[in-house]
Amino acid sequence: MTRQLRPIMEVAASLGLGDDLAEPYGRYRAKISLDALADAKPSGPRQSGKQGRYILVSAVTPTAAGEGKTVTSIGLTMGLATLGHRAAASLRQSSLGPTFGGKGGGAGGGKAIIAPLDECLLGLGDDLFAVESANNLLAAVIDDHVHRNGSPAIDARSITWRRAVDVDDRALRRVVTGLGGSIDGVPRETGFDITAASEIMAILGLSCDLADLRRRLSEIVVGFGRDGTPVTASSLQVVGAMVALLQRALQPNLMQSSEGDPIFVHTGPFANIAHGNSSVVSDLIALPRVDYLVTEAGFATELGAEKFFHLKCAATGLAPDASVCVATVRALKSHVRGAPLDSEDVAALRIGAANLRAHVANLRQFGAPVVVAVNRFPSDTPAELAALRELAAGAVAVAAHDAFVRGGVGATELAQAVVDACTGPKPCSVTRLYELDDDPIEKVRKVATTLYGAADVHWESSALRTLARFVKAGYGRLPVCIAKTNLSLSHDPTHKGAPHGYTFPVREVR
Amino acid sequence: MTRQLRPIMEVAASLGLGDDLAEPYGRYRAKISLDALADAKPSGPRQSGKQGRYILVSAVTPTAAGEGKTVTSIGLTMGLATLGHRAAASLRQSSLGPTFGGKGGGAGGGKAIIAPLDECLLGLGDDLFAVESANNLLAAVIDDHVHRNGSPAIDARSITWRRAVDVDDRALRRVVTGLGGSIDGVPRETGFDITAASEIMAILGLSCDLADLRRRLSEIVVGFGRDGTPVTASSLQVVGAMVALLQRALQPNLMQSSEGDPIFVHTGPFANIAHGNSSVVSDLIALPRVDYLVTEAGFATELGAEKFFHLKCAATGLAPDASVCVATVRALKSHVRGAPLDSEDVAALRIGAANLRAHVANLRQFGAPVVVAVNRFPSDTPAELAALRELAAGAVAVAAHDAFVRGGVGATELAQAVVDACTGPKPCSVTRLYELDDDPIEKVRKVATTLYGAADVHWESSALRTLARFVKAGYGRLPVCIAKTNLSLSHDPTHKGAPHGYTFPVREVR
Amino acid sequence: MTRQLRPIMEVAASLGLGDDLAEPYGRYRAKISLDALADAKPSGPRQSGKQGRYILVSAVTPTAAGEGKTVTSIGLTMGLATLGHRAAASLRQSSLGPTFGGKGGGAGGGKAIIAPLDECLLGLGDDLFAVESANNLLAAVIDDHVHRNGSPAIDARSITWRRAVDVDDRALRRVVTGLGGSIDGVPRETGFDITAASEIMAILGLSCDLADLRRRLSEIVVGFGRDGTPVTASSLQVVGAMVALLQRALQPNLMQSSEGDPIFVHTGPFANIAHGNSSVVSDLIALPRVDYLVTEAGFATELGAEKFFHLKCAATGLAPDASVCVATVRALKSHVRGAPLDSEDVAALRIGAANLRAHVANLRQFGAPVVVAVNRFPSDTPAELAALRELAAGAVAVAAHDAFVRGGVGATELAQAVVDACTGPKPCSVTRLYELDDDPIEKVRKVATTLYGAADVHWESSALRTLARFVKAGYGRLPVCIAKTNLSLSHDPTHKGAPHGYTFPVREVR
Amino acid sequence: MTRQLRPIMEVAASLGLGDDLAEPYGRYRAKISLDALADAKPSGPRQSGKQGRYILVSAVTPTAAGEGKTVTSIGLTMGLATLGHRAAASLRQSSLGPTFGGKGGGAGGGKAIIAPLDECLLGLGDDLFAVESANNLLAAVIDDHVHRNGSPAIDARSITWRRAVDVDDRALRRVVTGLGGSIDGVPRETGFDITAASEIMAILGLSCDLADLRRRLSEIVVGFGRDGTPVTASSLQVVGAMVALLQRALQPNLMQSSEGDPIFVHTGPFANIAHGNSSVVSDLIALPRVDYLVTEAGFATELGAEKFFHLKCAATGLAPDASVCVATVRALKSHVRGAPLDSEDVAALRIGAANLRAHVANLRQFGAPVVVAVNRFPSDTPAELAALRELAAGAVAVAAHDAFVRGGVGATELAQAVVDACTGPKPCSVTRLYELDDDPIEKVRKVATTLYGAADVHWESSALRTLARFVKAGYGRLPVCIAKTNLSLSHDPTHKGAPHGYTFPVREVR
Repeated sequence: MTRQLRPIMEVAASLGLGDDLAEPYGRYRAKISLDALADAKPSGPRQSGKQGRYILVSAVTPTAAGEGKTVTSIGLTMGLATLGHRAAASLRQSSLGPTFGGKGGGAGGGKAIIAPLDECLLGLGDDLFAVESANNLLAAVIDDHVHRNGSPAIDARSITWRRAVDVDDRALRRVVTGLGGSIDGVPRETGFDITAASEIMAILGLSCDLADLRRRLSEIVVGFGRDGTPVTASSLQVVGAMVALLQRALQPNLMQSSEGDPIFVHTGPFANIAHGNSSVVSDLIALPRVDYLVTEAGFATELGAEKFFHLKCAATGLAPDASVCVATVRALKSHVRGAPLDSEDVAALRIGAANLRAHVANLRQFGAPVVVAVNRFPSDTPAELAALRELAAGAVAVAAHDAFVRGGVGATELAQAVVDACTGPKPCSVTRLYELDDDPIEKVRKVATTLYGAADVHWESSALRTLARFVKAGYGRLPVCIAKTNLSLSHDPTHKGAPHGYTFPVREVR
Repeated sequence: MTRQLRPIMEVAASLGLGDDLAEPYGRYRAKISLDALADAKPSGPRQSGKQGRYILVSAVTPTAAGEGKTVTSIGLTMGLATLGHRAAASLRQSSLGPTFGGKGGGAGGGKAIIAPLDECLLGLGDDLFAVESANNLLAAVIDDHVHRNGSPAIDARSITWRRAVDVDDRALRRVVTGLGGSIDGVPRETGFDITAASEIMAILGLSCDLADLRRRLSEIVVGFGRDGTPVTASSLQVVGAMVALLQRALQPNLMQSSEGDPIFVHTGPFANIAHGNSSVVSDLIALPRVDYLVTEAGFATELGAEKFFHLKCAATGLAPDASVCVATVRALKSHVRGAPLDSEDVAALRIGAANLRAHVANLRQFGAPVVVAVNRFPSDTPAELAALRELAAGAVAVAAHDAFVRGGVGATELAQAVVDACTGPKPCSVTRLYELDDDPIEKVRKVATTLYGAADVHWESSALRTLARFVKAGYGRLPVCIAKTNLSLSHDPTHKGAPHGYTFPVREVR
Repeated sequence: MTRQLRPIMEVAASLGLGDDLAEPYGRYRAKISLDALADAKPSGPRQSGKQGRYILVSAVTPTAAGEGKTVTSIGLTMGLATLGHRAAASLRQSSLGPTFGGKGGGAGGGKAIIAPLDECLLGLGDDLFAVESANNLLAAVIDDHVHRNGSPAIDARSITWRRAVDVDDRALRRVVTGLGGSIDGVPRETGFDITAASEIMAILGLSCDLADLRRRLSEIVVGFGRDGTPVTASSLQVVGAMVALLQRALQPNLMQSSEGDPIFVHTGPFANIAHGNSSVVSDLIALPRVDYLVTEAGFATELGAEKFFHLKCAATGLAPDASVCVATVRALKSHVRGAPLDSEDVAALRIGAANLRAHVANLRQFGAPVVVAVNRFPSDTPAELAALRELAAGAVAVAAHDAFVRGGVGATELAQAVVDACTGPKPCSVTRLYELDDDPIEKVRKVATTLYGAADVHWESSALRTLARFVKAGYGRLPVCIAKTNLSLSHDPTHKGAPHGYTFPVREVR
Repeated sequence: MTRQLRPIMEVAASLGLGDDLAEPYGRYRAKISLDALADAKPSGPRQSGKQGRYILVSAVTPTAAGEGKTVTSIGLTMGLATLGHRAAASLRQSSLGPTFGGKGGGAGGGKAIIAPLDECLLGLGDDLFAVESANNLLAAVIDDHVHRNGSPAIDARSITWRRAVDVDDRALRRVVTGLGGSIDGVPRETGFDITAASEIMAILGLSCDLADLRRRLSEIVVGFGRDGTPVTASSLQVVGAMVALLQRALQPNLMQSSEGDPIFVHTGPFANIAHGNSSVVSDLIALPRVDYLVTEAGFATELGAEKFFHLKCAATGLAPDASVCVATVRALKSHVRGAPLDSEDVAALRIGAANLRAHVANLRQFGAPVVVAVNRFPSDTPAELAALRELAAGAVAVAAHDAFVRGGVGATELAQAVVDACTGPKPCSVTRLYELDDDPIEKVRKVATTLYGAADVHWESSALRTLARFVKAGYGRLPVCIAKTNLSLSHDPTHKGAPHGYTFPVREVR
């Protein structure tokens, strides 16, 4: 890093967050007090003028070639600042699993990073620890409850709550616990998720404040009684301790971009399993304090963005002013088997662009104008970039950037395109693809046929049985959160491009 | 808390730790840079004059009645400050297991606490997360290595490395991992320890600096090859990642007492399983900066104190100027079945005091003068307190305190007794009970017969076999770390008082 | 039983099996020496004139209403004897699982039973013990081999060999074995099959003599090495012990019908999992000694009969002179949801008869003329029986019987129809649906599309992987043995009637 | 075998067991009807004159050198016949585990075997199958009961009933069953015993008739309810099916010695775990039909013989007329470390004879005169044999035999010594070492201190807890059946000779 980092309290002050609302955690990270929510309560539609513009960054289907979504989000933020706007980003925090697993930590790259990079990747352990401990405390209480034959009685085989560790550990996916004779509890088949995929992480990201966190924790269903009654965390008397553990973790972390712009780095739910968006409280705190807030949803439009609209916006009442769909020439070409990634092939790009068009169409379903952001690579040729501009049917603009190499000044064209797309009145709400009153089966059908390109949905009978149990217990009006592969618009990672006409299978309901 | 807390950077500055050496982590905790070690390298015996006096606090056998060791440590520190000395304490950090398990978090009580108490109990999660993640990363790498049939080959059944979570979770003590078919690895019987009992926590506490940490991590033996060769963490190429995870956690945390005195709160190994002492780096950093440094060892003299002398002092080259043995009238009376705890019974106290005398004798074995600190309870009667003063044979002084009720001013008699005990020249080294060249069987025998009151030691044959494997692999010269119950001087929690003449059994070697 | 049973040695003598070839096992069962095979070696096509006629009994899809296949087989044998022919039956022995599971033991009923019934159900335990012990001895040797790290090395996760007990025990379907630390072996996920479904039982039924048994046992693949090489029972040095255990069990058991006719009761492989036919040696010994030998294949035509033709006939070189398809009015009506079983409903019968026609067509594929045997129930009406006679398109005859009520005299019409169907020359061989040189995927496709009514076959990718391993190891030329539900012609037990046009899924290859 | 075997029905007839009471099972084995018990009901003490003399064969502590107890039992029977007496033996049947495990099958050797040897070792599978299936049926019913949450409720962790297979399979000692999700039942830690060590085998051997069998099966305790109430097989409605399975197996098998003498071969409980004696019904049927009945108890006097007296004689009301203690020069010398087994060493023999004297003393405790039978080996020298005769203090006679080489004529000296020892009046009952009214702790103490040489008994606390549960449930008046190593008089296989003064540990109660 050639540039000197700003003291974090100075970055906070630039947002109007003084010593009373920001606490330093080391030199380059601050925890923001939830008191900063006071002027940002999520009470119905936002009034224009009082809030900044809200930009969602999504992307085409991820490929091994890499699409650079986080680089684009940070670059766009820096580009907006370069143009003179007050801009901030709201991103997810990293998980140790991918960091050590070689997949990259999701903190940007080149000249568009969260700084300091190492602290961002390794240094937010207190939040992860809180999530992990709250998750595992509940698990321990559940097993203790079964061991003691507590009331309400749980059918041990109905327990769906798993444990969490923040390591990518294959051997923990399926385990038998409670071995060692009757002193060590009741044997049970269960498993561990990576912390970022845990339900607690998802809840932390969606909670609007402490009371909301407590309510969501209370309503966790950990299993069922012999009579089919759901057993909740609340009935196990453990919510108080979980809230105590999570209290600090609910406070957003403020860091900065490599050019000193404010970046909220808070909660890190995976987008293939959980909802894949950074925290609700970050956005609620940031929006009244900036002109533009850039937030990023995990994976492509049918995963993180779908959940952004149906879950996160449902929690905040916010709606984005514009959506950005990140694409690269390489990623689109890699949808065509055998296409050369390092040399020009416009024909392959034209075929692969079907994936881009499908994602642009997906984003448009939700109501905001779509800007296609092309993350430039050295191997891109002028002919390819020109072709790509034509191929993005449905987008209001296509803008390339090279923030990776040049930082904010490399992203001003993109920034301007986004500013231009936001000229309309502040939107009141998102266009939902389903109603909460829809039957869960219908909800899944609408998502799968509208966004995934599926012709039909097939439910396995065991999934239907579990679903019926939840519906009977009154959970039918909740939105759905679908876990599927991120490597295709469909459920099958080998289906590239824009698959359609297939049957989408549902195997399990939790 | 009636008193206003001091800004933590001010507390740091009072030790000469400025902004370059201390970083705030919230308002009331600072991380101290390892650069502060520069003037404190553990190179042979300390020269008197350049370092403060070093006070070890240990105690009699713990009972349900509670002995108040941490209250005494904090009270003594505050008492020394009240007398005008520059004093600090070095304590272990809390573990969530006992905190939620109802056993208390080990952060003091009444007017003698680490402040702020809630942050101390819940807020050092980044350190615990680092320990847990480093521990579990190694475990994941081991199982992945077995799964891939990597080289060096490990006999999967010889693996002794367990996983860790910071929850007291009975169901995880014995588990089978790697289920779910060949994709999810190789089935294996293993288990989880609470993070505070993990070997990583023990290593973190004993490491003198980053290089020492790296060396200790490298030498971890995770299992054996089919030919009996030990397989180390080093040979699994995982040490670099573990060091990266633990780097920050090796920096001591500075907090303050309820009266504003500096308290280092760093690492939390359990004393029944691990070595039970706060970190080496805390003591090395603190000693040159104070007149008196009070540190506390877990449980009673045969556990935490024994490991303080044989393990921690071996790592630092330090030796205490005085030992304090905490006792209460109630705790000693509760060694006598049926004795009234809430009303006077001098006869029972006389019998129970055998336990105190055994512990005083144990501490004296290591060479420093012993002060008995009587932590007063409202129910103590003058006759009992008077009797106790007579019964502490071998101690240079007996002093009561009521820091719980009155804070530092309630502990000035004790503080003065400790000051008086430290009048001799700075000691060069501790008196060890065994030599490193002793055979491990002999080491255990010396500890058990000298400190535990055992007449003999019985090794189970499987323990002998494992020991032979370690000795053959060259580990015979290490000191021993014995895990045993904390509820008796012996291995049997029902043996109260000062048991002797029994055979101490050794069941397992790890 | 009103009738006096014949001494079993007298029954044996009636087949020309004297004291040298038959040994009594109790009063009503004899073991037949394999020396009786001398004149019956399975060397190429049978010459007509030297052997009796060979009748296969199969049936429509089983329903809860019961179709009475074994009653029909025994009744047909008694009917043939009543008409003056030398007739015998060759049936499977019972398994304790279904006997205690309430599904009936497969030994007939009413006046058409194997006698004595209780001995037949409980008394052939020596054979089952031999199968179970040989199966479990191999399993123990495999685990011991893994434990000792023996050569050839086995990848423990590739082991497909399971253990067997002759109890229907849900809890043993999936287990983890080898727990208890390194002394008790290597933990492994595996399970138990019911003895009747074990591969040893299948092998015993298909072996032509001791040498063939030894060869088939030797070639059992128990798993694979790390390099993909198959590991066989032969390479584990255990085949000799297995042959010793199975030697006696390979000798057929001779019992009698309730009218004193010879019935061979030997081996009992399930037809949904294994091949579902009685032993090859029984048929080879019986055929030269009778005019008619009736043998029964488990479940319906697409299961037991398909395996009779492709596996059993391939082992013997025999081909049946006629096939009998057992049906009942009730069973066919129960393919129509809501149809009354106890009162007349010709319309429902006409719909349900689609199932009968599909099975008759299936049997005709293999070349022999088909007789439909209607097992009469008291509730059958004349109109229904008349309708059924019309509906059996493709059969050379339709004949009702009531052997359950009247014994052999109730089955003479059926017997005569079978005699008439056998007037042609002795057939040389069966018409196979696939060639051994066909690729296994093609073999399955041909069976599924020809017999099951499937339009296509879908292989899961893990099944394809395992298959490739077997093919690579040279097992591609073996016939296939498909395990599927017996409750429908398709893979889905709820598809009644004659399903077609669906995709048949393949989940696993062993 | 040089000698022609007799038809088994002829052997049966020689005992007065005609076609009505004996059924052939192959040529050389007959099942004896329980109607043969009619004149042998176990109703109080036997009247002399109506019954043959009853000879118990026990031995010194087994060693790798082999002591030849079964050879001696068969040889003694043949020797008695050679002297003109009507003699028979009553022995245990073989288990596949030891047969394939290389330990020998317990059917004699040389010229003193049960004939035909191979059939004896492999051919009684119907009995083993019945035991195994009854055992495993109960296990399946228990797990099904837990799965269905049946009444009476069982605490799954209290279940002590294990499964059985007749293979020595290390990997089945500890398993987790019921995996695979809720369809496959409730996960549970359990294990398999070898069939010969199962409780069903023990029960079969002790049952006096069908009614007694049914009663004993009904009273099996499989576990406890949450309230501590025992749950019996009877309450699970499974006893009828178990009796049906075991009915035939309760009928003794008659075979013959290599010289044609009747040998009952029936039930095979191991003596280290179960009671180690052949069946009660064999002895009850045989005794009224012979002059001498030789029966053998497993392992040495403190195991099989102790259980013979306390359990088997308690079931029959019988008492032996004489006890034989088998010893060999080699076995006694092998109690002395380093003593030469193949060359003379009288000094070592004198030391090793302490073991013989202890066993003779043990047998004498129960009241019958003791004959020491020396099984001669070619390496024995005259000086050693002479010394041994002196060393057997307490025996009424010492007689050597070489039945292994010479058959019955080689055992006439021993036979005569036994005849001479039986000259007294028929004994009324055995001298018990404890009363049934004794507390179970006292019973164990008496056995351990009287027979094992222990000074004291130590109960682990978990064993005491389980015992208390059984006693509370009313089982305190049963005799005790102690499982311990057979390789020493003590619990420690390395304690050779005649250990004394040690503490005998009790680890578990079932």
